[in-house]
Amino acid sequence: MTGDTQNIGGVIITPLKVIDVKDGNVLHGMKRSDPGYVGFGEAYFSLVQSGAVKAWKRHKVMTLNLIVCLGEVRFVMYDNRQDSASENMFQEVILSNENYCRLTIPPMVWFGFQGIRPEKNMLMNIVDIEHSPEEIDRLTLSEINYNWEIVE
Amino acid sequence: MTGDTQNIGGVIITPLKVIDVKDGNVLHGMKRSDPGYVGFGEAYFSLVQSGAVKAWKRHKVMTLNLIVCLGEVRFVMYDNRQDSASENMFQEVILSNENYCRLTIPPMVWFGFQGIRPEKNMLMNIVDIEHSPEEIDRLTLSEINYNWEIVE
Repeated sequence: MTGDTQNIGGVIITPLKVIDVKDGNVLHGMKRSDPGYVGFGEAYFSLVQSGAVKAWKRHKVMTLNLIVCLGEVRFVMYDNRQDSASENMFQEVILSNENYCRLTIPPMVWFGFQGIRPEKNMLMNIVDIEHSPEEIDRLTLSEINYNWEIVE
Repeated sequence: MTGDTQNIGGVIITPLKVIDVKDGNVLHGMKRSDPGYVGFGEAYFSLVQSGAVKAWKRHKVMTLNLIVCLGEVRFVMYDNRQDSASENMFQEVILSNENYCRLTIPPMVWFGFQGIRPEKNMLMNIVDIEHSPEEIDRLTLSEINYNWEIVE
């Protein structure tokens, strides 16, 4: 589910290093020389409760770089760009400390995410522009049909 | 302990917003327009076990921006810059979700940090240049005398 299928155009899944350190590990996030880095606007954390879904959103300008630092989060992307080779494609990626990758989502791709673990689920998002409501499109959960059921 | 005393020269403590969201809160980290932002080189996570101390380090070039996203972390800084108004000053700052601030540490200030909570203690560090061993000075824990005992 995480990189073994074709990506939606512009989506990048980058495995990240975890460095073993005696008193507490260091986990890479993003370097300015990394694939997917297109500038720094803002970095913030988002929590998502177990089973809860935050969807759907699309950024007209912003590129997202998502890293799950705690728990497990399911990301679902939907491409309805008319000029896209991956038009109408859905892509699902589940990230956690065990599948520790950075997910880059380009502008104009719909996305949502869901908390998986009963404990805290937390992601960091590094974005290339500061938050601006004008460049965000939103749809309610039911406006894009996707089965969010968690299969154990 | 967190901003109610004088800061070491160049140190900035910036309270951060937590935005209440129904299915999981959003926690601000850093914006490019924020105080303390001097460029993006890298963002990474560092874990620190309860009671463990990671110390001492000094960056010759790098500015650190530290945010505790989980647990509670004690930061101790020591200024031995000869031209500094805060020469020989120690400063201690304890950050957590309850005291949710960003700690900016300028180059040439010694620092270390310690995990406080029995559960996971995790920080994010946003730095202005990519990691480079050449610009890091290190001392062992005992080379700068500080009482790291945790008083309940």
